[in-house]
Parts: sequence; C-alpha cells; structure tokens
Amino acid sequence: MTDDSDRHNSKMAKKKAARDKIMATKTDEKGLIIVHTGKGKGKSTAGFGMIFRCIAHQMPCAVVQFIKGGMSTGERDLIESRFGDICQFHTMGEGFTWETQDRDRDVAAARAAWEKAKTLIRDPANRMVLLDEINIALRYDYIPLEEVLSFLTTEKPEMTHVVMTGRNARDELIEIADLVTEMELVKHPFRAGIKAQIGVEF
Amino acid sequence: MTDDSDRHNSKMAKKKAARDKIMATKTDEKGLIIVHTGKGKGKSTAGFGMIFRCIAHQMPCAVVQFIKGGMSTGERDLIESRFGDICQFHTMGEGFTWETQDRDRDVAAARAAWEKAKTLIRDPANRMVLLDEINIALRYDYIPLEEVLSFLTTEKPEMTHVVMTGRNARDELIEIADLVTEMELVKHPFRAGIKAQIGVEF
Repeated sequence: MTDDSDRHNSKMAKKKAARDKIMATKTDEKGLIIVHTGKGKGKSTAGFGMIFRCIAHQMPCAVVQFIKGGMSTGERDLIESRFGDICQFHTMGEGFTWETQDRDRDVAAARAAWEKAKTLIRDPANRMVLLDEINIALRYDYIPLEEVLSFLTTEKPEMTHVVMTGRNARDELIEIADLVTEMELVKHPFRAGIKAQIGVEF
Repeated sequence: MTDDSDRHNSKMAKKKAARDKIMATKTDEKGLIIVHTGKGKGKSTAGFGMIFRCIAHQMPCAVVQFIKGGMSTGERDLIESRFGDICQFHTMGEGFTWETQDRDRDVAAARAAWEKAKTLIRDPANRMVLLDEINIALRYDYIPLEEVLSFLTTEKPEMTHVVMTGRNARDELIEIADLVTEMELVKHPFRAGIKAQIGVEF
C-alpha cells in the first residue's frame, strides 16, 4: 500500500467515525412532507422514482396529477398495468394553465384533484401520496393554501409521506415541510435547439 | 366569467403563444449527457425515474452502480425481476468510500464499473445508460477524468442518453454535458433527528 493510499484510508476512517456518530442520533421515523421545487429538471421524475421505491418495497401508494403532462402517459400506463394493486394513479388536471386558458375550469380541476388527494392521504393504508405539480395549483390560488397547510399539519396520518412537486413552492409550504429540495437549472438542452425527447422529458 | 378570470385567461393565452414560438425552434433530437449533482436529495432517484420512463416506453436501458447504496436492493430487485429483459442492472461498487477505507479496492471497483459502463454505452441497442454515483469515483480520481470525457465526446453513440449522478460533479464534466441539474438541499429531516426511512431514502 502506498503512502497516498494510507493517508486516504486514514481520512476515510475519520469520515466514517464522524458519520456513524451523527447517524446514531437519528432514531425517529415519521411520515414526511417532502417538496421538490425549483426551475430545474427532476422534480416530478424524482417523485416518480420514490413511488417506484415504494412499489419495490410493496408499500401501498398513490399519485394525483394536478396538471396533466407532468408525468407521461407511458409512466401512468406502466404503473396501472403492472402495479395497479399497489399504486393508484389519478390524473385530475387538464394540462398546464397556459394550455387551457380557462381559469374557471382550472380551478374546478384543481379542486377535484385536492379532494381526491385528501381521500387518499386520509387512508392510512397509503404509505406515500405524490401530489404532482400541486405547487402550480397553489401558486395560482386554484386551491386555498391555508386549507392545504391545515390539512397536512392536522389530518395527515403520522406515518404517511406526502410528496409535493412543482416550481415556485409557496414559502408557507416550505416552512411546514420536512425535506425540501430545490432543483436548480444549470444547463438545459432546449437552449441548444434540442426538443423534448422520449425517455428524458416524457 | 369574472374580470379576474378574463385577465388570467388573456395572460395565459400570451404565455402559451410565447411558449409555442420557443418550442417551434426546438426540432433536434440527440442523445444527451445528463448530470445530476448537488448536495440535495433526488439525484439518484430522478435518474432511477428516467430509467423507469425508458422502461415504460420499452426502450432498452442499463444501470451501473459505481457505489453500492445509491439505489436500494429493492429497486434493483424490482428491475431485475420484472424488467430484466429491458434493463440491465450492474452493481459494481463496494459501498461509499468512507465505508470501505481501502483506496486500492475502491479504485479497482471503480475501474471495473467504468469498463462495464463503456461496454453498455457502446452497444447502440441501449437508449439510456445510468452511471449512478460516478461523480464520487471521478472526484476521488478512482477513474481518470480525461478518459471519461474523451469517451463520452468521441465514442458515445449519437442517440444514446448517458445519465451521471453524484455530488461534486467535476467542472469539466458539466462543461461537456447537455442537461445539468443541481439538487440543492433546502431542508433535511436528519437535522430534526429523523433517520433514513424505507420508501424515502432506500
């Protein structure tokens, strides 16, 4: 073994000791309020990945799409056809708001999605519920922020994880959340004239 | 319809026109070099979500885990048992570097993972290859950065997507990438004494 390797191994041993010490203090389990926001890619995709993680562990879970298009019909078909017994999938939205140009219809769709979300979250059999693109509905006041905050802090079963995605998460939501990640856009191929592609964007 | 709704709808119509105009210029398709980095959650999870997106579209794909633990054995088992015909899954790493404390072994494992990655990427049947946690191997110089950059820019088939995850992505890798997202940690439940939980972290 070289001196370099020796130094590396000793540094890593210290790192492991420090990490083990920190991890020993983390003993609690609870259902988390998880937010994926920011202008970058991966907000819905990582939410979808967590749903598949639950499916892998045979944990009952559910998805409510507040806006059609956040996830592809391919993903929906895969879940419904292969894992419909573990994961419910509800597409309630009508497309992004700038596609519909009809606020009254958007509000009605968002309200229906939120009612479905509450029913799914209240059922303690569901271990995780993904509310895809709910942040857009909250941003445009399609559903009342106060009602969502109140429901999550008082009615959500203690062990249920709720994952909420979309740009421009409201500050009050971030305040009550346990785990918040901001997906930051560093570089995007649209700028180089590349269109949305199967397998990447949808 | 109220005046508020009118204003909203007119604003959204303008937004759609602007968006349609931008999207009309995005006509090219190509295999992307995609990087997920940053200290936040969701780097591997979003990569895993993209692999499931490919599986949903019946696009052959592959995963190489450079570090054991980035994805859970549950996810691996799900892919191997249900989708082994579409997605190859290779776990080459030995655990995080601070767990092994043996640089020589880490270097050998990373080298083997990279050789496997090259074989998978060279096969044009694979539409997407996920190199999970390769950034850690590059950060510690377990595999030569120059070799990875040169391979990706000269040998990667034009239509193949390569997704590379892990903290501390090297600047030179970001430079050649098409799509880069930095997952930024805004709030993490470990700070509140909550341990890693099934379905969320693994």
